[in-house]
Amino acid sequence: MTYQLHYWPGIPGRGEFVRLALESAGAPYVDVAREDADAGGGVPAMMRFMADPALARPPFACPFLVDGKTVIGQTAAILLYLGPRLGLVPASEADRLWTHQVQLTIADAVAEIHDLHHPIASSLYYEDQQAEALRRSADLRAHRLPKFMQWFEAVLARNKGNAQRETPRLVGGRLSYADLSLFQLVDGLLYALPKASRKVLQKAPLVRALHAGVPKQKRLAAYLASERRIPFNEDGIFRRYPELDG
Amino acid sequence: MTYQLHYWPGIPGRGEFVRLALESAGAPYVDVAREDADAGGGVPAMMRFMADPALARPPFACPFLVDGKTVIGQTAAILLYLGPRLGLVPASEADRLWTHQVQLTIADAVAEIHDLHHPIASSLYYEDQQAEALRRSADLRAHRLPKFMQWFEAVLARNKGNAQRETPRLVGGRLSYADLSLFQLVDGLLYALPKASRKVLQKAPLVRALHAGVPKQKRLAAYLASERRIPFNEDGIFRRYPELDG
Repeated sequence: MTYQLHYWPGIPGRGEFVRLALESAGAPYVDVAREDADAGGGVPAMMRFMADPALARPPFACPFLVDGKTVIGQTAAILLYLGPRLGLVPASEADRLWTHQVQLTIADAVAEIHDLHHPIASSLYYEDQQAEALRRSADLRAHRLPKFMQWFEAVLARNKGNAQRETPRLVGGRLSYADLSLFQLVDGLLYALPKASRKVLQKAPLVRALHAGVPKQKRLAAYLASERRIPFNEDGIFRRYPELDG
Repeated sequence: MTYQLHYWPGIPGRGEFVRLALESAGAPYVDVAREDADAGGGVPAMMRFMADPALARPPFACPFLVDGKTVIGQTAAILLYLGPRLGLVPASEADRLWTHQVQLTIADAVAEIHDLHHPIASSLYYEDQQAEALRRSADLRAHRLPKFMQWFEAVLARNKGNAQRETPRLVGGRLSYADLSLFQLVDGLLYALPKASRKVLQKAPLVRALHAGVPKQKRLAAYLASERRIPFNEDGIFRRYPELDG
């Protein structure tokens, strides 16, 4: 079964967390909004899907995943669904719930980083809320980034066996979707706020090791070097605005 | 087994979404931070629990639920765990995932409403970010509240059988934890932004009917009339600041 992923074509954004899971597992998928309109793809196809009044369970926003008759919105819910199917989560209920809990915390961090450049409204341009963004950035750098990173570091430090692993894991001994998402979060932060992120990561050696080790997986390395990997840019969640970097 | 709920004692906040599930199911639980310090409760007990370095899987923040050896943070993850145990979610994987997806969208709305009065930083007082909050409130009233409420309305309209029910349901025909959470979201909005909320709810009759019908459940009615129900107040997520109500 080929999965259909629906997400904005020009940014990594939240779609990338799903893409990394699909790519690292070698799962077949179509990135619908990046396909040609002639082939039934493109953003209009995505918008048509979302707006279909016959859809009993409509996603609130993209990304959403279509697997046969199942339609799933919310990034963390998509990964909750894909995890067991792609072998990216341990088998026990406790482990799956914990992986999901870590993912929801990554989602919270992502939302705060988005709101860094859009503290007033997503419907306004950054330039129209730059003064507010500057104020917000001071708190993000001083409090929120360290709090998130120290928590991820503690989770890695307390996961038994990480001392013996070249690449630490958030849950158990094998790669999980949460590892992929933490890689992406750190990668995005290093793009958007290089100075502030490097400073925070100095005190998070296990997070650094995870970020360095995850892309060595063969399929992931191939993906990251491909054109399918969309570079970070100033339309996405992780934007490089040097004035916000302290 | 008695559940332990850990959350700030003075506000309904995110803890209330968990409390409503426990109360409506008549589940035994201890509200740890609201217990006497003499009885091993209070905020210090919650803080000690979170800060324990021996905790292999520490919650990032409260609320968190302790069920024997299982510790679960993140409101939506707690409800994902409790749903089947309390009979507050249908049995099929598809229904459970959909209920969770609705819950995550409620969580997104809650986060946006919190950030309405704290657009710059949770670490600052409202008074120190009031100008920014005023700007943000205009967008929330014009765009975000209508978008969320129209989505919930569509979900209710598309759930077969709601036309025949006195109280509409978000998923299937029986009360789910998402129904309880949507009740709480609407209740909080009507407290915080009465003018703006009533205006938005004019176009969401099924959401209004859900909000009116959910508290008629016997156990819930008893809970809402009890001292265990913490009133909304200006330390919580839903704050009544008339200047933000348009």
